[in-house]
Amino acid sequence: MDKIKRNERIGAMARILTAAPNHIFTLGRFCGMFEAAKSTVSEDVELLRKVFAQFDLGQIETVTGAAGGVRFVPRLSQASALAYVQELCGVLSDPGRVLPGNFLYIQDLLSQPDTLEVLGAIMAGPYFAAAPDFVLTVETKGIPFALMVARALGVQLVIARRDHKAFEGSVVTINYISGSGGEMKTMSLAKRAVRPGQKALIVDDFTKDGGTVRGMVELMQEFDVTTVGVGVMVERRREGAPRIYEDIRSLFIVSDAMDARQGAVVHPAPWLEVQE
Amino acid sequence: MDKIKRNERIGAMARILTAAPNHIFTLGRFCGMFEAAKSTVSEDVELLRKVFAQFDLGQIETVTGAAGGVRFVPRLSQASALAYVQELCGVLSDPGRVLPGNFLYIQDLLSQPDTLEVLGAIMAGPYFAAAPDFVLTVETKGIPFALMVARALGVQLVIARRDHKAFEGSVVTINYISGSGGEMKTMSLAKRAVRPGQKALIVDDFTKDGGTVRGMVELMQEFDVTTVGVGVMVERRREGAPRIYEDIRSLFIVSDAMDARQGAVVHPAPWLEVQE
Repeated sequence: MDKIKRNERIGAMARILTAAPNHIFTLGRFCGMFEAAKSTVSEDVELLRKVFAQFDLGQIETVTGAAGGVRFVPRLSQASALAYVQELCGVLSDPGRVLPGNFLYIQDLLSQPDTLEVLGAIMAGPYFAAAPDFVLTVETKGIPFALMVARALGVQLVIARRDHKAFEGSVVTINYISGSGGEMKTMSLAKRAVRPGQKALIVDDFTKDGGTVRGMVELMQEFDVTTVGVGVMVERRREGAPRIYEDIRSLFIVSDAMDARQGAVVHPAPWLEVQE
Repeated sequence: MDKIKRNERIGAMARILTAAPNHIFTLGRFCGMFEAAKSTVSEDVELLRKVFAQFDLGQIETVTGAAGGVRFVPRLSQASALAYVQELCGVLSDPGRVLPGNFLYIQDLLSQPDTLEVLGAIMAGPYFAAAPDFVLTVETKGIPFALMVARALGVQLVIARRDHKAFEGSVVTINYISGSGGEMKTMSLAKRAVRPGQKALIVDDFTKDGGTVRGMVELMQEFDVTTVGVGVMVERRREGAPRIYEDIRSLFIVSDAMDARQGAVVHPAPWLEVQE
């Protein structure tokens, strides 16, 4: 094999690291792959770190210690994250999105892999430090977004079901009150899906008063799992109305009043605008 | 701004191209970003192409013509794809996965973002040439896998529902016969989700006799959409039993007989072993 040049090593490392966000790769792995010394690979990592920072492509982090190495953290700058969300606010304000019954059509946004990947990384941003063991969502619409949040964090996605199925084995089922009218609903999760003592990040596509979110928080309590946060893509906010669950970090805030001629009023959530 | 060096350009380009699989980026975009001549960027692309090929990291393709540029196609070598599927066959054969009622537990596999990304790329492999406009699946379990197939192809995911909801606007609903007992089921899709004349790749997580798959094919006919293929992650095959829909490309084939002490017998699908 010819000696692998620095620019070739850097191209390959960028590909390998970014394909597995938040996973730690040992330097030894790259040394073996490229037949290069550790000092050489360290210099490669430092070069990659600088260029990713310069072009706002995410962070290359060196992790010290016994389980140390290098990892890619898909964290955008605050300015880029806000700009990305703001641009989509414009898309969501399109009058054509207001459906009969005062609903907002967001299905297309929930199924664009590229868009979801960026939004997933933005949503994951505040939770890298808490290091959740998995992302929990409930079927159906939130699954693609939750998967991309899980991808950014480098953890598994766990999906609670509305009705349990035989192919999941034993399940734990809870009842919870859905906000929109005090209706009783159920939610199930396979017993083998999570373990006591783990940490969960709860993710959903949409919330109005937090009823489903609170159901997921209670489900985690049944499993002795700690909820480290709740992230929701779109939040519909009614002026002055109390919410069943308060501690929610959303990306888009849609005002409750919606006009089929003027479209919905959509804003980035305030935490996206706070100076770091 | 200091002049960007070749190894820095290559690191940044690897990140940008692989973050948006199958999307064409013009060379001009990179020229502007790096303040570099087209000939320089072309050489960068060629270097990246070679090193990706050398380490089996996917293909960097140059596309000529008016809409030309460069793109990343996440196509693995046949040997890598087969090895990856074979390793997971071992995981799926674990006796602990046989559930009461002769079901196989695959939920964890369906929610590991890294694993799904590789399986999605393998499943997409035979369909890059057909260039589908979107991937269609039906809720719920197949959504994460289908999203990763869509990501590899650089297209949208479209999700049919078991029951339609108000927030999707008008829908088309079909009835179809589910294989397992001739039961009648329904499937709905929002009218605005797809357009006549488009091409669909149908993807699901599991099939036994192809009933649900055939439902999706019929749904696409209602929308005047051409189905370019059907990809399924896990196929359960009963010796000699006819299938409702035949033209299915799966990744894993599980024999119908399953023993709680010995585990299921799981093989890679034959097409993965055929010489290219």
